[in-house]
Amino acid sequence: MAEDLKSLIRDIPDFPVEGILFRDITTLLKDGAGWKRAVDAIYERFKDARIDKVVSIEARGFLLGGVLAYKFGCGTVPLRKPGKLPWEKLSESYDLEYGSATIEMHRDAVDEGDRVLVVDDLLATGGTARAAANLVEKAGGEVIAVAFLIALTDLEGAKLLDKYEVFAVINY
Amino acid sequence: MAEDLKSLIRDIPDFPVEGILFRDITTLLKDGAGWKRAVDAIYERFKDARIDKVVSIEARGFLLGGVLAYKFGCGTVPLRKPGKLPWEKLSESYDLEYGSATIEMHRDAVDEGDRVLVVDDLLATGGTARAAANLVEKAGGEVIAVAFLIALTDLEGAKLLDKYEVFAVINY
Repeated sequence: MAEDLKSLIRDIPDFPVEGILFRDITTLLKDGAGWKRAVDAIYERFKDARIDKVVSIEARGFLLGGVLAYKFGCGTVPLRKPGKLPWEKLSESYDLEYGSATIEMHRDAVDEGDRVLVVDDLLATGGTARAAANLVEKAGGEVIAVAFLIALTDLEGAKLLDKYEVFAVINY
Repeated sequence: MAEDLKSLIRDIPDFPVEGILFRDITTLLKDGAGWKRAVDAIYERFKDARIDKVVSIEARGFLLGGVLAYKFGCGTVPLRKPGKLPWEKLSESYDLEYGSATIEMHRDAVDEGDRVLVVDDLLATGGTARAAANLVEKAGGEVIAVAFLIALTDLEGAKLLDKYEVFAVINY
């Protein structure tokens, strides 16, 4: 199945900078059958995991976060870049290749003991997803797994997430 | 129904600037039953409208865009801030209270004759949604309606969208 879905991903050389092969998911997203199969692949894997919250990461992660929460019948939690959330926040910084970045979550977004699935579109170095998992744990939640549409396995992002089950619909 | 869902919205005075009452949707999003009812309200309204694509606006609009496309069995198209999309783009600028902003869409995201639902979390002045509808039309698509979780009716954003059906789950 993943091989079929791979044919819906558009490869863009030298984006955003020279030497990077960008995996463009918009060609999968716009294909109704492809989008359904990608969502269902994650849903089927975790439908018996008693998920209480789906936490997703700004911005493309939200495409998955809303639909998976709906399918599980649970709530969805958006993690955002600094300054976007209006209420009391937890925040977590992580290293990028150059410099660092920060993501934020409302302090009341996850309840003590919540079983949480963290989702994003792409697993690269794993820094963002690890920061998201840390935020969930700061709030007292339990990270059941981290799921992606695509994993770039060469970058070994799963190492940074080795405390958790890591699942990707498509692996490169 | 909208009155029940209103009780899940958190009012935050003076955010992002003094004098603005911010309608925080994260308290609705994290409520599984509330999220399901909000999504179903839009789905029920347009389920017989033969929607071919759901176009949503970065970032919170993506929460709705992914799930509604899944429900309709069609593709989802993310409109993004400048510089984020990797392939050939159409772009549209619109006025803000101070200055202007631009959103972009891949040139191949919408096909000639596609019946499109545009979705976002919040209707305020309508500028962003109008720019989104313009992009859909530039690509040859037909905007069937524009749907929101919340409409701030005092700001009269629907006037800028008067060519289209406008639907909001919650009206203030």
